[in-house]
Amino acid sequence: MALALSLGRRGWGRVWPNPAVGCVIVKDGKIIGRGWTADGGRPHAETRALAQAGAAAEGATAYVTLEPCAHHGQTPPCAQSLIDAKIARVVVALSDPDPRVDGGGLRMLQDAGIDVTVGVCADAAARDHAGFLLRVREGRPFVTLKLAGTLDGRIATATGESKWITGKAARRAVHAMRARHDAVMVGAGTVRADDPSLTVRDMGITRQPVRVVLSRSMKIPVGSQLARTAAKVPVWLCHGAGANVASWVENGAVSLPCETVSGQVAPLSALKMLAERGITRVFCEGGGMLAASLLNADLVDELVVFSAGATIGAEGTPMLAAMGVDGLAHAPRFTLSSVATVGGDICHTWRRLPAP
Amino acid sequence: MALALSLGRRGWGRVWPNPAVGCVIVKDGKIIGRGWTADGGRPHAETRALAQAGAAAEGATAYVTLEPCAHHGQTPPCAQSLIDAKIARVVVALSDPDPRVDGGGLRMLQDAGIDVTVGVCADAAARDHAGFLLRVREGRPFVTLKLAGTLDGRIATATGESKWITGKAARRAVHAMRARHDAVMVGAGTVRADDPSLTVRDMGITRQPVRVVLSRSMKIPVGSQLARTAAKVPVWLCHGAGANVASWVENGAVSLPCETVSGQVAPLSALKMLAERGITRVFCEGGGMLAASLLNADLVDELVVFSAGATIGAEGTPMLAAMGVDGLAHAPRFTLSSVATVGGDICHTWRRLPAP
Repeated sequence: MALALSLGRRGWGRVWPNPAVGCVIVKDGKIIGRGWTADGGRPHAETRALAQAGAAAEGATAYVTLEPCAHHGQTPPCAQSLIDAKIARVVVALSDPDPRVDGGGLRMLQDAGIDVTVGVCADAAARDHAGFLLRVREGRPFVTLKLAGTLDGRIATATGESKWITGKAARRAVHAMRARHDAVMVGAGTVRADDPSLTVRDMGITRQPVRVVLSRSMKIPVGSQLARTAAKVPVWLCHGAGANVASWVENGAVSLPCETVSGQVAPLSALKMLAERGITRVFCEGGGMLAASLLNADLVDELVVFSAGATIGAEGTPMLAAMGVDGLAHAPRFTLSSVATVGGDICHTWRRLPAP
Repeated sequence: MALALSLGRRGWGRVWPNPAVGCVIVKDGKIIGRGWTADGGRPHAETRALAQAGAAAEGATAYVTLEPCAHHGQTPPCAQSLIDAKIARVVVALSDPDPRVDGGGLRMLQDAGIDVTVGVCADAAARDHAGFLLRVREGRPFVTLKLAGTLDGRIATATGESKWITGKAARRAVHAMRARHDAVMVGAGTVRADDPSLTVRDMGITRQPVRVVLSRSMKIPVGSQLARTAAKVPVWLCHGAGANVASWVENGAVSLPCETVSGQVAPLSALKMLAERGITRVFCEGGGMLAASLLNADLVDELVVFSAGATIGAEGTPMLAAMGVDGLAHAPRFTLSSVATVGGDICHTWRRLPAP
């Protein structure tokens, strides 16, 4: 199952709105088929693993990271494919809360006389499928917030200089992280300050993450990189009522009118818009205002911090804007999930408490 | 030599103004003597290792992390002890730049017909002896700056709440770090805000580090913990001209008048005062003003950062005060030396560039 999970994670950022599933077929202690959800979401992991196993699948055991689907979509249900292949036993990490499946896949298998086990590596699978599960259960995607700055938490000097605080290796790691999410999200301030392209470069990927901008008023130059490239790589605008997005939409951007709160796009409203359109994993790269509002709304599932060995001091631009935390008991808390060196910088990853 | 170095480090914080030396005596591939500078600085490492080896020292090899002393102080010179014990070979990591030694120990050994090798593990020894070397060469101690805060670099909420951001394990690690330095140093703001005792607790140490306060005007309540305990554990005051320190001195504190710059005690002037009095290793625990002025003066040799998995936002108190860094090229830069988890927090240690 650990192998199936690691195969499944290959689909992160490439298979939305589908879950990124992994499947391993084992017979007589030998792996005869391995599969994961293909780019774009089809074929499914089970179909690919069964194709690899061929006729040998008869009497074998299939390890699948999520309950096989039971509904006819663009492809026949995976549960049926497993039955047709005469699989003897199916081990499932997690049942699928999608109302179209929701135990139906397991029942189909059991009704066909297949031995079914559920819950193997369930915690790990719940972490891997967190984006898909959150989308189904809460109607919002999994949110990774990236912060990158100096040891004292600054992202630019008082004069606005920010290139580069972290090193080349860290910036490359950020591209890899973008590629493992369905969408990359920033606030309007970041677009104005840095004019980023937010694409994944030099990674040989086939599907760029959707680029999402949150801006109540959309006062962003139409000459910005995002606007100019919107026809090639999707740009979705989460904006407030009355924002003028006509020229952006002409350029190919998608308008998503959202609710606002205290003069800003409400982050939950924006995330729900994204989930409705199939996004399961969002990578937020700031700026400080958007990051603070996500944290305040308890919408950050994973926090990735790159710390560079430099100090700027109190006049520098802070990583996070004001949060109105009036006591330590109310400060958002996270639990460490990993720490590593990346070039000359360190990268530490934290998960929200309690775990999602 | 690696063993001798690790023995030598046991003396950190316990042997000033002496260097913390380690010595291992080996004969026929067997360790027959191990020694390190004793608490308070005497006996020296070689004397203790020779005592352990006894008559077996004849014909043996001694590994010493610093050139054996050649001058008669309160004890006979170690070079003479090695000669008297009929040691055949002495391997030294680093020659001693102290003008009273400065090659004299090596010459004494060679003149006595002992085979002498110098420079084994010299880089590691230079790091271990950095405090002693800086004191002899530049007249200032080695400075470790500790910063502890949230992921966004805050040390307290807007309302001043700071207990506790980091966990118990991190706070205990700080006590262990204090114990490995000759002095613990803070600015007046920290004394006023936190009223710390700055002692090492629950570690069974025999010698508390000197507690140093930098304050131009010494406007600190005489009822503070430091003032009240000055008779028991040393308190040294680095203050500006005209500061009223009479009541502190009455309580047992030591007055060290220093130069001031831009209305603050000049950090280099204070460090020179400490070095003159024998301090080789200083552990600075802030606050943000003192930390920023040390960084600005390029006086931070090692930076220890504790990061807790929490965020406070821009209204929180920053780790570092304004530093006047007007371009990234002028931001102080450090190179990573280690990173580890400490309880639920992470501790990352950085060294100044270029290395001291």
